[in-house]
Amino acid sequence: MPRPVTFWFEFASTYSYLSAMRIDAEAEARGVEVVWNPFLLGPIFKAQGWDTSPFSIYPEKGENMWRDLERRAEKYGLPFNHAAKDLFPQHSVLAARVAIVGLQAGWGRAFCRAVYQAQFVDGADISDRAVISASIGAAGGNPEDALAGAERDTAKSALRANVEEARSRRVYGAPSFIVDDELFWGDDRLEDALDWANRD
Amino acid sequence: MPRPVTFWFEFASTYSYLSAMRIDAEAEARGVEVVWNPFLLGPIFKAQGWDTSPFSIYPEKGENMWRDLERRAEKYGLPFNHAAKDLFPQHSVLAARVAIVGLQAGWGRAFCRAVYQAQFVDGADISDRAVISASIGAAGGNPEDALAGAERDTAKSALRANVEEARSRRVYGAPSFIVDDELFWGDDRLEDALDWANRD
Repeated sequence: MPRPVTFWFEFASTYSYLSAMRIDAEAEARGVEVVWNPFLLGPIFKAQGWDTSPFSIYPEKGENMWRDLERRAEKYGLPFNHAAKDLFPQHSVLAARVAIVGLQAGWGRAFCRAVYQAQFVDGADISDRAVISASIGAAGGNPEDALAGAERDTAKSALRANVEEARSRRVYGAPSFIVDDELFWGDDRLEDALDWANRD
Repeated sequence: MPRPVTFWFEFASTYSYLSAMRIDAEAEARGVEVVWNPFLLGPIFKAQGWDTSPFSIYPEKGENMWRDLERRAEKYGLPFNHAAKDLFPQHSVLAARVAIVGLQAGWGRAFCRAVYQAQFVDGADISDRAVISASIGAAGGNPEDALAGAERDTAKSALRANVEEARSRRVYGAPSFIVDDELFWGDDRLEDALDWANRD
């Protein structure tokens, strides 16, 4: 019986986009259950002394990340729009709070994928309430109710608790995957993490 | 006709160990020619404001790297000895200069693999001339001649030229692979880089 895998993702994270689009099919193929946990990298980067993404701090690393993302997206048959570079890294708090609401209500995963699509394919600003509303609607949620829910303390503290849990599990980047006490970092470890869930 | 792939490696780099052990077989299976280019990460890290490996600067990242290395080594059937952690990151200038000599003489690749084995399997100090001598001998070179060659200006300036070329190609970590103008970073991109060499 495979163990569940927790999927830790940040909406502003480029490689989280690849994993969000891939993980459910890869997990299903292995009979593995995935729990989606949105969190924020900002507080974690701040603790490492960074005030923004390392891809913005280190130019060579950032340049190659975009090129690599493009090559990987092509490999996986996922679309990618260069316009996404101009807004990187985006403000993701609103999307993350709505995801908390949606994941409890059952339309969360479709919402997450719609937000990634808006950001990395349509080149939209995901801190814009209109963009988030459209993503909620596309996922089958009620935009007005969901946005109201995202403003409530329960959603805010649930997101803070996710960030705290990520830190206490020693997550330092996104996407990350945890199986029992095994931490896997990066979209390129997605298959390894899911395979680990099936180890005896 | 596949294009050649340049393999940029640093002896102190953990993931370069995995690639050094894997690349020739993976390349041969694809009919791809690989050029081995030892370089030093020290000057490149310094330009990014780091005085040592980021795995030493960021504890969570370092912890997970060692665990990930162990999992990946197991996946590839490569041995790994935890004793290697105590000396990380090692001084690699002597090994890199000898590699320059050996790669010209024809015993370089076997020497590189012997040095990685000494470091990550035997837990040896690769700045120790006795360890390097043994690796030269194991690779079929003459230790005394090779060590003398490594001290000559030609070897020193060839290594400096490699570091400069790596920087000018915007290499920011190791291992890296370059095909034409495509830069791939990390052991987990080895297969992608070799496949790229066969694209039309």
